[in-house]
Amino acid sequence: MSGAPFVLDSTLAADGHFVGDLPLSTVLLMDDARFPWLIVVPRVAGMRDLIDLRRAQRQALLDEVDACAYALRALHAPLKLNVAALGNVVAQLHVHVIARHAGDAAWPKPVWGVGDREHYASVALTAEVARLRVALGLANAQ
Amino acid sequence: MSGAPFVLDSTLAADGHFVGDLPLSTVLLMDDARFPWLIVVPRVAGMRDLIDLRRAQRQALLDEVDACAYALRALHAPLKLNVAALGNVVAQLHVHVIARHAGDAAWPKPVWGVGDREHYASVALTAEVARLRVALGLANAQ
Repeated sequence: MSGAPFVLDSTLAADGHFVGDLPLSTVLLMDDARFPWLIVVPRVAGMRDLIDLRRAQRQALLDEVDACAYALRALHAPLKLNVAALGNVVAQLHVHVIARHAGDAAWPKPVWGVGDREHYASVALTAEVARLRVALGLANAQ
Repeated sequence: MSGAPFVLDSTLAADGHFVGDLPLSTVLLMDDARFPWLIVVPRVAGMRDLIDLRRAQRQALLDEVDACAYALRALHAPLKLNVAALGNVVAQLHVHVIARHAGDAAWPKPVWGVGDREHYASVALTAEVARLRVALGLANAQ
């Protein structure tokens, strides 16, 4: 890969709201109020698949994915967590962490491509990001 | 969780062909010839989400998921690897590792729920399992 600096993919940036930066990854809240849905993007340029990361980076990413899963479990008590690195549409390596409930808008199917997105209302968005920042230990940062 | 021993979920067992046992996980080849598709099932009873595993087990699982990804990349040269722990239908913790190509039967959508499965022909199945066992370093085991 080139020595170009990391730049967050424009589609991810457009689809998500910034929650915070963990040591390796930027955490976004997907702008779809139907599902508590985080996107974890390691700030490493040129990465496409998990196995493109160096081993130490992979382990760091997984620790951060785990932290997001714990945060969603604490805030939303999901029946199931979905964790997935797909990237067929957006090539930049990113990991979805989604809290699923029986009866949610896609259950039991995966969430991708199901129905129409529901944008967060401004107040709900601000509150959710604030709760996520606390749950992720980011509340006093920035 | 109870002290019950690990038993492979019956749906996973029915949907997949046994490839081999890695130290922590059983590797299955999904019986769908449209996609090179492995399912990695840690042999730990009562697990549902990745964060249910102890940290050392999580790291071991991820190393084995990586090994499956490398094997699929070596054998199938995918454009993209899809790695996902969903489990909305089958609760037992399992990780999908799928080699994706532009123009495959679901591209660029996720594979779940798309179209009808194509069962492997017997000869193709035997050959694929044998190649996977070599790629996973299991060729001389059992």
